[in-house]
Amino acid sequence: MSDLAPLPRKRGRPRLDPATPGHAREGLLRAGVALLTEKGFSAVGLEEMLAAAAMPKGSFYRYFPSKEAFGLALIDRYDGYFQRKLRRHLEAAERAPLDRLADFIADARDGMARHGFARGCLVGNLGQEMGVLPESFRARIIAVFAEWEALLARCLAEARLTGQLMGHDPEALAAFFWIGWEGAVLRAKLERSPAPLDAFAAGFFRLISPSV
Amino acid sequence: MSDLAPLPRKRGRPRLDPATPGHAREGLLRAGVALLTEKGFSAVGLEEMLAAAAMPKGSFYRYFPSKEAFGLALIDRYDGYFQRKLRRHLEAAERAPLDRLADFIADARDGMARHGFARGCLVGNLGQEMGVLPESFRARIIAVFAEWEALLARCLAEARLTGQLMGHDPEALAAFFWIGWEGAVLRAKLERSPAPLDAFAAGFFRLISPSV
Repeated sequence: MSDLAPLPRKRGRPRLDPATPGHAREGLLRAGVALLTEKGFSAVGLEEMLAAAAMPKGSFYRYFPSKEAFGLALIDRYDGYFQRKLRRHLEAAERAPLDRLADFIADARDGMARHGFARGCLVGNLGQEMGVLPESFRARIIAVFAEWEALLARCLAEARLTGQLMGHDPEALAAFFWIGWEGAVLRAKLERSPAPLDAFAAGFFRLISPSV
Repeated sequence: MSDLAPLPRKRGRPRLDPATPGHAREGLLRAGVALLTEKGFSAVGLEEMLAAAAMPKGSFYRYFPSKEAFGLALIDRYDGYFQRKLRRHLEAAERAPLDRLADFIADARDGMARHGFARGCLVGNLGQEMGVLPESFRARIIAVFAEWEALLARCLAEARLTGQLMGHDPEALAAFFWIGWEGAVLRAKLERSPAPLDAFAAGFFRLISPSV
């Protein structure tokens, strides 16, 4: 993200020294994403996030004017991470379009498994909590889903060109996929199991390409 | 519910007198369901529920031994309400099976519209919050979804018999429907709009019966 001090680039997540200003902000964003994918915004106090990031309470307002501004930064952070993952799979020209979607699903499934299916989707969690969240989150989260839909619709349009998609409309199908996928992530967290992700993915592929 | 004192039977929700013991418990359950479908368990304090039910704080433990026991009673209450709604539609023998599912969807959509799309599904909300909820909720919520799935699978099995369903497996399709439907309810709350419910329902029907 362009407003961060440069960080050491190596595989895996580098350890961050909270005494370094750029590192402190980065550490807080990481801790926030981890806690919000697992617990949601209203269940997590600012103190818990600060403790997870080893940041003294007084320092928070050096980086964010409010918990709301911090929440919006967390949405941006998660969206950036997730779009990189999506593009890596959905724009992989060497793979057939529907195989790219299957690759994304396998990657997301591995990601949930790595955290024992305790962590879901940050924007899905926040969407569920909108009843008690700052209104500024609503438009931002809707915009995030629209971006993910556009990326998937482009991939599905390619699938239609190559005859993989029967007659279905790529944009309607992309909207349908994300609506259902968020439900699948929710159920996977509930059941602590990949079964709902697998059931939704298998159903989706069977329904859009009955011959597959 | 069999453990309640008999309540006056008339259309709509009767006013409850919190001074009457059966009414006080009933009022608390109603307030709890309303607050939990809108805000979720961790965002709502016991005090907010007691205030909504006009119940003095000291009275709560006459009815429930803990907030956890109260939460389990709310799941039972919501499940009972929802299963009555589901059976009314899915077991309506005079309607074609897929029309029954469409009737349920229209009813659920009306219900969300009545509350300005601010209230979602209580068990979906709790499922999303499992990371911070008592573990006893998990098995109960999984069991609730299994019951809803069984009701829908029976309806879809009839649809297959009458040739409405192509070759799809009714049980796999029922699981797929509920996974996606919870995602649709989440998005409808986020967008304060019926569009996600409509998009999911239209996609589902188009995919299971491409000729419809």
